Amino acid sequence: MIDLRSDTITRPTPKMLEAMMNAKVGDDVFGEDETVNVFQDKVAKMFGMESGLFVPSGTMGNQLAVKVLTEPGDEILIDHKGHIFNYETGAASALSGVQVRILDGKNGKLGIPVLQHAKRGNFDWEPKTKVICLENSTNKGGGVCYSKEELSAIKTFADKEDLRIHLDGARIWNAMTATNINPGFFGEVSDTISVCFSKGLGAPVGSMLLSSKERIAKARRYRKMWGGGMRQVGLLAAAADYALENNWDNLSEDHRRAKEVAQVIFDSKSLAVDMSNLQTNILLFDAVNETAESVLKKLAEKGIQMIPFGPKTIRATFHFEITDEDVEQVKAALAEIGK
Amino acid sequence: MIDLRSDTITRPTPKMLEAMMNAKVGDDVFGEDETVNVFQDKVAKMFGMESGLFVPSGTMGNQLAVKVLTEPGDEILIDHKGHIFNYETGAASALSGVQVRILDGKNGKLGIPVLQHAKRGNFDWEPKTKVICLENSTNKGGGVCYSKEELSAIKTFADKEDLRIHLDGARIWNAMTATNINPGFFGEVSDTISVCFSKGLGAPVGSMLLSSKERIAKARRYRKMWGGGMRQVGLLAAAADYALENNWDNLSEDHRRAKEVAQVIFDSKSLAVDMSNLQTNILLFDAVNETAESVLKKLAEKGIQMIPFGPKTIRATFHFEITDEDVEQVKAALAEIGK
Amino acid sequence: MIDLRSDTITRPTPKMLEAMMNAKVGDDVFGEDETVNVFQDKVAKMFGMESGLFVPSGTMGNQLAVKVLTEPGDEILIDHKGHIFNYETGAASALSGVQVRILDGKNGKLGIPVLQHAKRGNFDWEPKTKVICLENSTNKGGGVCYSKEELSAIKTFADKEDLRIHLDGARIWNAMTATNINPGFFGEVSDTISVCFSKGLGAPVGSMLLSSKERIAKARRYRKMWGGGMRQVGLLAAAADYALENNWDNLSEDHRRAKEVAQVIFDSKSLAVDMSNLQTNILLFDAVNETAESVLKKLAEKGIQMIPFGPKTIRATFHFEITDEDVEQVKAALAEIGK
Amino acid sequence: MIDLRSDTITRPTPKMLEAMMNAKVGDDVFGEDETVNVFQDKVAKMFGMESGLFVPSGTMGNQLAVKVLTEPGDEILIDHKGHIFNYETGAASALSGVQVRILDGKNGKLGIPVLQHAKRGNFDWEPKTKVICLENSTNKGGGVCYSKEELSAIKTFADKEDLRIHLDGARIWNAMTATNINPGFFGEVSDTISVCFSKGLGAPVGSMLLSSKERIAKARRYRKMWGGGMRQVGLLAAAADYALENNWDNLSEDHRRAKEVAQVIFDSKSLAVDMSNLQTNILLFDAVNETAESVLKKLAEKGIQMIPFGPKTIRATFHFEITDEDVEQVKAALAEIGK
Repeated sequence: MIDLRSDTITRPTPKMLEAMMNAKVGDDVFGEDETVNVFQDKVAKMFGMESGLFVPSGTMGNQLAVKVLTEPGDEILIDHKGHIFNYETGAASALSGVQVRILDGKNGKLGIPVLQHAKRGNFDWEPKTKVICLENSTNKGGGVCYSKEELSAIKTFADKEDLRIHLDGARIWNAMTATNINPGFFGEVSDTISVCFSKGLGAPVGSMLLSSKERIAKARRYRKMWGGGMRQVGLLAAAADYALENNWDNLSEDHRRAKEVAQVIFDSKSLAVDMSNLQTNILLFDAVNETAESVLKKLAEKGIQMIPFGPKTIRATFHFEITDEDVEQVKAALAEIGK
Repeated sequence: MIDLRSDTITRPTPKMLEAMMNAKVGDDVFGEDETVNVFQDKVAKMFGMESGLFVPSGTMGNQLAVKVLTEPGDEILIDHKGHIFNYETGAASALSGVQVRILDGKNGKLGIPVLQHAKRGNFDWEPKTKVICLENSTNKGGGVCYSKEELSAIKTFADKEDLRIHLDGARIWNAMTATNINPGFFGEVSDTISVCFSKGLGAPVGSMLLSSKERIAKARRYRKMWGGGMRQVGLLAAAADYALENNWDNLSEDHRRAKEVAQVIFDSKSLAVDMSNLQTNILLFDAVNETAESVLKKLAEKGIQMIPFGPKTIRATFHFEITDEDVEQVKAALAEIGK
Repeated sequence: MIDLRSDTITRPTPKMLEAMMNAKVGDDVFGEDETVNVFQDKVAKMFGMESGLFVPSGTMGNQLAVKVLTEPGDEILIDHKGHIFNYETGAASALSGVQVRILDGKNGKLGIPVLQHAKRGNFDWEPKTKVICLENSTNKGGGVCYSKEELSAIKTFADKEDLRIHLDGARIWNAMTATNINPGFFGEVSDTISVCFSKGLGAPVGSMLLSSKERIAKARRYRKMWGGGMRQVGLLAAAADYALENNWDNLSEDHRRAKEVAQVIFDSKSLAVDMSNLQTNILLFDAVNETAESVLKKLAEKGIQMIPFGPKTIRATFHFEITDEDVEQVKAALAEIGK
Repeated sequence: MIDLRSDTITRPTPKMLEAMMNAKVGDDVFGEDETVNVFQDKVAKMFGMESGLFVPSGTMGNQLAVKVLTEPGDEILIDHKGHIFNYETGAASALSGVQVRILDGKNGKLGIPVLQHAKRGNFDWEPKTKVICLENSTNKGGGVCYSKEELSAIKTFADKEDLRIHLDGARIWNAMTATNINPGFFGEVSDTISVCFSKGLGAPVGSMLLSSKERIAKARRYRKMWGGGMRQVGLLAAAADYALENNWDNLSEDHRRAKEVAQVIFDSKSLAVDMSNLQTNILLFDAVNETAESVLKKLAEKGIQMIPFGPKTIRATFHFEITDEDVEQVKAALAEIGK
């Protein structure tokens, strides 16, 4: 099967496993795993942040950010397609007691028009608006990315309104590949950033939260409380480090392959795609005359897996386990289905 | 000052105070306050519910409902103008750990189109959709009411989708006055109802949660936990009972007065109102060429208080402390301002 | 029946009701109830605190204190007989997410020996010790009171260890009557105090939280969130104010009556009491040869109600509804049962 | 340095790393990691439980157990030395909103005498007693184990009182080695069990929660919510499986070494140990004439690390990285210090 369901399915390569085997590890609950310590400092520095905290999942990274930026009874702002709102089991409300207020952005991105009047007053009966959550690239929004100008405008707005910014960078590596924005810029416009090594980069497990020393110290306590304190976790950090050093460059290939497949869809009669929104490795397209389920069934018969993203919408995600040969096969299948 | 800011400002009348003085009270934490016990049974029976629980506020009634209908990690559906979402300090997330998902209804009312695709799947990463929260009449929505047909359709949908319904009846008395729906019908279409005695009915303090015996027993525990267990509370229940018996009928006068004032606005040049949405005692209207603040300032100079409800929108709420003489004064003021 | 189960059962007197009728009230959610505002300032000033907040119950007062003094993951220290640990439905853990660590004090009172090693270290895996909760007089401890010296020692310890002190003053009025400590002293040794008007003082409903301006402002938000924001609550504040002005002096009579009854128990053969622990209106005594239930049954047959406080222990609580005639009847009954 | 601080510091061996490299992995968030699936079933079956859930830490295993066995406002019973009470950052209160009630057991073990009166009544103002938490072997209690008879008695009590039992089996492998109780017995007396692979067994990361299908399904959702859902986690499960198959047998060596060292302490003049409590790999001993810190300093000078466990108490934990040569060195050092 050609599996385009998600870039989370990528498995560690032999060389990555070798890097893991050679890692020098210690007990990270005691702060003694050298591999983790060095890797945390390295990624924090890359983004211009004071400290980093290695965590078992992107969800934990995002939720620790929400936790250290809020108190119960606060409110956070997020696009209605945001990962924190849709795919984290309601954790922001359950773990931090905050209300998640969704806004109608575009392709999962927020902008000043929807943020403009979103901050509440100071009455006792109102939640306190505290955080703007951005996702870059957007997952449910189809892999689109924020421009530098868009981020700067939001940062200016947040400063004026005394709001914090959390950046969900599950696919920040794809965003950087697509937009050429350097990591330090994201550190400038954000109070907390979570980045993930187990999606397109291909590490088996692992994300990182980046922020100030004080917030990371707090997050460390909550990580322990939530059960995310692990022992010889340098093994996983070594895989993540290998992924960062060796697999980041290849993301542009995933993007190229997504575009090639999109072109076939664009040229077809009964499938539709908005090429202008295709920026990274996530390809959203629509069935014109049939349901998403019907198209997915036809694809499955041809050995191709994608996932439904709405009654007529399908998502295909490209990653390094998908070769150029796979892409040819996918193109042929879609040309056939879409004719 | 003619105070049209809210119907919550209504003060107890001498006769109501007399009723309080004559109440036979006991220790309600021990379940020994006869006045409360009888009143709880009476209101529960009126709505065709098994049990009632007297609580210090409408917020506590609503939040106890959310608590007994959900578990942490669940999601509740509500119109984006809903009281629970806007005016309860984020309590649903903070006290029950549930995510509040707002939907784009109309005038604060939900309908099948927006509910249709709102229930989530059963994946581990999704919150569990559990409750539909309805408000009747709607506060922020301008006092509009659900019709029997609308409620029946939502109830049918909820049953099919295995969702519970909570009805925020802070102003259910106004809704019943306006629509002639009998209380038993609300009991049929709801799993929990909160009703309030301290708004248009004029009691000083007090609301009630209505539901099944089992849920009310649970709510009683949480009421104690949240600090809402009171001692000789029959005093307050006596005032609420008096209000129900004596002040309900007069709500139609408040509605008539709201309409009279609205007509003046409708006839004016620089103020606007949608007469078709004016069903009860809450009157929303807009300034055409100036801001709400500017109109409110002019009103204040004429001894009239209302509150802003948006950059150009104003809310006036009618209640029994507003006399026909007051109404004439308000009409004259608005005619002058709106000409 | 002569009801010695609790001083919470006291009902408002005609004069108190008259005071309520004459109160000038407003909407307290808007901060416009003059009677409440004046009363809050008055009690705060009495205890040398900046601000006060009227709440529907002692539980809400205590729990708001815990809320404003802690964060989730903190730990509070309390005697194992403490009200917050035993009689508030686990609220400290449920509402504030804090761990309640019980210590083995004496008669419900904490002292330096048990506090000495109770503060935890700063490791990520440890809860953060934050608050010492004291109760004065102690309910489950039998109405005993802290001396000035004991409180000063705890305050010195707390300052050294950077811990906050919450004083649960549900029966602080009894403690002051018994020890002649002036209210200002309690303000000096505490960060937050909750006091109650509906026990021995006889108000129908109402407690107050006292603290700094900043903490009370926070508590006000949480009061709203938890459903404790009430409207024309000046009615209840007027009763509480009346109780404070008129009923406080009479507590010494309750104490005298408790002592008289205790003497009969002390002189009896088959009932036992520790006279040295009898300081206020709560009388704990033991059955020597039979169970508490058996004694309570005999008392009930003679028209007297008390409550069990252990397999062999009984609690009798004196309050203003118990007259000297009642006391004679109780003495006679106990002399008979205890012979 | 000879590191006896904890058995959590054990690092993966080359053979374990090889097992990891050969593991067949998939995306476990989608339930598609075969290595994890097979391992979960294997361990569940070993303990006679329906299902297992691989988690990143023992803390997450314990806390998920508390979560699925309770509701906010419940109370759990635990010895005052219990890990859940002391070393999990207050998580039971913060994540599940439950009150942790400590009891005075012996060496970290609970028995019927302290449990007898611990269950509360059913009043609204009382937390609901729900779970008995046992730890086997006990960490802070010095590695002692429950006998079959003790566990059976607690199980009988729990059934009678309608309480659940959670078994914190962080070192259950040591307990089984010491007592010869078979794993199935623990499944019979427990509702939930957490076991850990990263202590004496030597896996780098990983624990498992065992329970019924229904509870594990719930726990799976909360694991995702708390950020413990990992992707190609079969890598870690492979290490855990290797540890279970290859390192369990060697625990008896750790126990033997602990006893040898204890004998030296027993024979010394200024160090003391209770040999009757030494059952597994955890050795607690006391300094007689000096502080624990002073002894630890002397040990450190001789290249040996242990940790303080009280003002005069020291803990040494034996594990497979400690060789017989190390033991000789430790014995010599203690003989010298203790003479």
